[in-house]
Amino acid sequence: MLGWDREAGMPASGGDARARQSGLIAAMAHRELVRPDMGDVLVALEGATPPGSDAMRQVQLMRRRRDRAVRLPEDLVRAHSEATSRSVTAWIAARPADDYAAFAGPFGEVVARSRDAAVLLADGGDPYDALLDEYEPGARAADLEPVFAHLRTALAPILERRSAQGLHPLPAREWPQGPQLGLARAVASMVGFDADAGLIAPTAHPFTQTLGAGDVRFSIRHHIRDPLENVMITLHEAGHAMYEQGLPAEYEGTPLREAPSLGAHESQSRFWENHVGRTRAFWERCLPVVREHLGDAAADLTVPGVVRAANGVAPTFIRVDADEVTYHLHIALRFILETQLIRGSLDVADLPDAWDALMQDMVGVRPDRVSVGVMQDIHWPEGLFGYFPTYTLGSLYAAQLAEAADEALGGLDAAVADGRFGDVLAFMRDRIHRHGSRYPTAELMRRATGRELSADALLRHLAAPPTA
Amino acid sequence: MLGWDREAGMPASGGDARARQSGLIAAMAHRELVRPDMGDVLVALEGATPPGSDAMRQVQLMRRRRDRAVRLPEDLVRAHSEATSRSVTAWIAARPADDYAAFAGPFGEVVARSRDAAVLLADGGDPYDALLDEYEPGARAADLEPVFAHLRTALAPILERRSAQGLHPLPAREWPQGPQLGLARAVASMVGFDADAGLIAPTAHPFTQTLGAGDVRFSIRHHIRDPLENVMITLHEAGHAMYEQGLPAEYEGTPLREAPSLGAHESQSRFWENHVGRTRAFWERCLPVVREHLGDAAADLTVPGVVRAANGVAPTFIRVDADEVTYHLHIALRFILETQLIRGSLDVADLPDAWDALMQDMVGVRPDRVSVGVMQDIHWPEGLFGYFPTYTLGSLYAAQLAEAADEALGGLDAAVADGRFGDVLAFMRDRIHRHGSRYPTAELMRRATGRELSADALLRHLAAPPTA
Repeated sequence: MLGWDREAGMPASGGDARARQSGLIAAMAHRELVRPDMGDVLVALEGATPPGSDAMRQVQLMRRRRDRAVRLPEDLVRAHSEATSRSVTAWIAARPADDYAAFAGPFGEVVARSRDAAVLLADGGDPYDALLDEYEPGARAADLEPVFAHLRTALAPILERRSAQGLHPLPAREWPQGPQLGLARAVASMVGFDADAGLIAPTAHPFTQTLGAGDVRFSIRHHIRDPLENVMITLHEAGHAMYEQGLPAEYEGTPLREAPSLGAHESQSRFWENHVGRTRAFWERCLPVVREHLGDAAADLTVPGVVRAANGVAPTFIRVDADEVTYHLHIALRFILETQLIRGSLDVADLPDAWDALMQDMVGVRPDRVSVGVMQDIHWPEGLFGYFPTYTLGSLYAAQLAEAADEALGGLDAAVADGRFGDVLAFMRDRIHRHGSRYPTAELMRRATGRELSADALLRHLAAPPTA
Repeated sequence: MLGWDREAGMPASGGDARARQSGLIAAMAHRELVRPDMGDVLVALEGATPPGSDAMRQVQLMRRRRDRAVRLPEDLVRAHSEATSRSVTAWIAARPADDYAAFAGPFGEVVARSRDAAVLLADGGDPYDALLDEYEPGARAADLEPVFAHLRTALAPILERRSAQGLHPLPAREWPQGPQLGLARAVASMVGFDADAGLIAPTAHPFTQTLGAGDVRFSIRHHIRDPLENVMITLHEAGHAMYEQGLPAEYEGTPLREAPSLGAHESQSRFWENHVGRTRAFWERCLPVVREHLGDAAADLTVPGVVRAANGVAPTFIRVDADEVTYHLHIALRFILETQLIRGSLDVADLPDAWDALMQDMVGVRPDRVSVGVMQDIHWPEGLFGYFPTYTLGSLYAAQLAEAADEALGGLDAAVADGRFGDVLAFMRDRIHRHGSRYPTAELMRRATGRELSADALLRHLAAPPTA
């Protein structure tokens, strides 16, 4: 609640008090988790709960959460927190000046403290896995490395072929901002977001937040570049929000009523964004809705024009502006470099050269300055290592789920063309949402798709874009 | 935060989870307050803190809060809470049917449990005082009774004289709803609400809420009957909100950074609403702002017309619709009856007859059914005894403050006519806001106005309404 409101309502001058309030609540929750008698409670529950039951899964999820919290000494937690705070401050100051030297010191501290934590948590294993496990429980770098290696090799010719066709963006014009929230609401309701059990608000950066059962919220941008951007953001966040709305109600307030990982969550946002939202079938239904809300401004848009714009591909420096193909090369690059940073085989001082060389090799472009290269994202300065791969995992799972939906629904495209969004959502409810955290992500996806994790489905999807 | 959002954002389906969240936070706060070692902490602080210092006042305010919490046994708190819950449910069902008999049983339970609590808290004194003390610390029924008796006698001829002039409401029309929030913002900023340190939102019932230093919010109605209603609600809530914004920043998070009572708080809302907002001087400045926001709809409004509408008086059954004169007869009636209920001299079964007889005697009208009589308010079913008098106390203090401001500013009307709202606010900041809870309300007001509490100033104000 405090976090949602900070983005969606709070005046800037409320920030100091809000930070103290959020800090207090976080500290109280942490204190409950690490209380000595909580250890005894878990041991007692482990002895008294039927193995294989949902109840036992709850106990295991709490055990996992507590073990991570207990294992990190308080002084390391504080040192890491202070290092990330200094590093973000340095990043904010040094990025506009392209001054990596001024950033490297504070950032080096973050890497060092992250490694300290990783080594403690890994208990002899790969330290990177210990960080990855925070966001993608059960995932291991050794399993992801061949997948990313395959992606890297196979995406190169797809990027070359698709980028040869050039970009076809929507016409540049002053798109009206007033009706954008209404458009987002209409699109979200069309695909199945339950607006009576949540709401949509504008914020600086789109995100989804569950405030309690029956209250799932997401945001779109304050300012929207064009209706395509609005619809893609809406589908992405509505994918997250519909997942939250479909989690098992009977487990409210417990770790079972959560997605098992960020990758699982991202599978839902990317499914709606990329496997529904970029198709001709979808835009045949969506363009009239866009016209209804934007009026004259959208009068000259055509379905082929929007579908071409939605599927344009071109190599770019910047991850957040990247198309669906280039995006995963950006992630693969970060995955390669952050595993080396955490394992200690790459020095912070050598990071910019390593970044530029890898970017040249993988994407075919070489940043001429760090602000559009290694310093573009806030995530590493914030200490988020093991986080980026979940974006690509989400896309891999989304593509596998799209193929499974295609089979189950007698054609995903046909269902979308008929406006049978309810059938598509029912498929996700049944295969993914209703299970909550009952299974680890890999098992959940195996049950949902009948397949092991691989890059094949995503590569098939990217190799054969929708025809305009 | 949870309470603000429940009114201003939350979808209805989020209510169950929100009630659990609010209940948890309230229970945790209560648990901290009554912890056995908190008693030792207070004793130690009382011994070690300089008498008469602000620090000692903090200790005293915490002591008072804790003593009340500790004195009520948990089973009584629960019984009272369950009784009010059943009574509100019965009230909601029985009021539309005018069925007092169906309500009397559950309501009798609330009265009985409130008396139980009052007797425990009063420790041999007047049980009503113990309830009054929750909302108006330091106030005693024995001091208020002569004031209300004076009001009752002196208001009768004022009501007769002013109501003879009839009501002159604004013309009935479809007032545009869209620009009302903008109008509220403009009016609030004009009188001194710091919009950069708060916000205004629409809700079902207007209220003010502080979320932290630098974040004070208030609401106006979703649907506004006319611009006069909008402006009066805005001035009332902005009065509360500017008080919150002016509380001493150095005591954030402590009981010193709060108003000393509801009556003190209400003195601010009613000062701006009644002593500024109903004057000709104010509307000379405000009507152009109304026109700017409402355009054609407000084109035929005149300053005399709005001032006449703002000062119309007529006897009515319903408190919340009452004019400024009749209002205090409604409160006096409730004060008389609730002291009798809590002291045990009036039976719940006899309440409707007592209500109707008193209403006939004081206001000159007799309700023909309980829904517009004794069952009109939710407050008593909710167990709020000792609460109503704070509304009139607020008006008494507001009138005394208005006379003091008149003297200090060389004419309050002249200051408003010149648009010197900053001077008016500075007067309140200096005399009231900056002191927080440093003094009990009676002492705060004595220092601010040089007068003891009396009905004289309010009666002077009501006897001589602004000329249109």
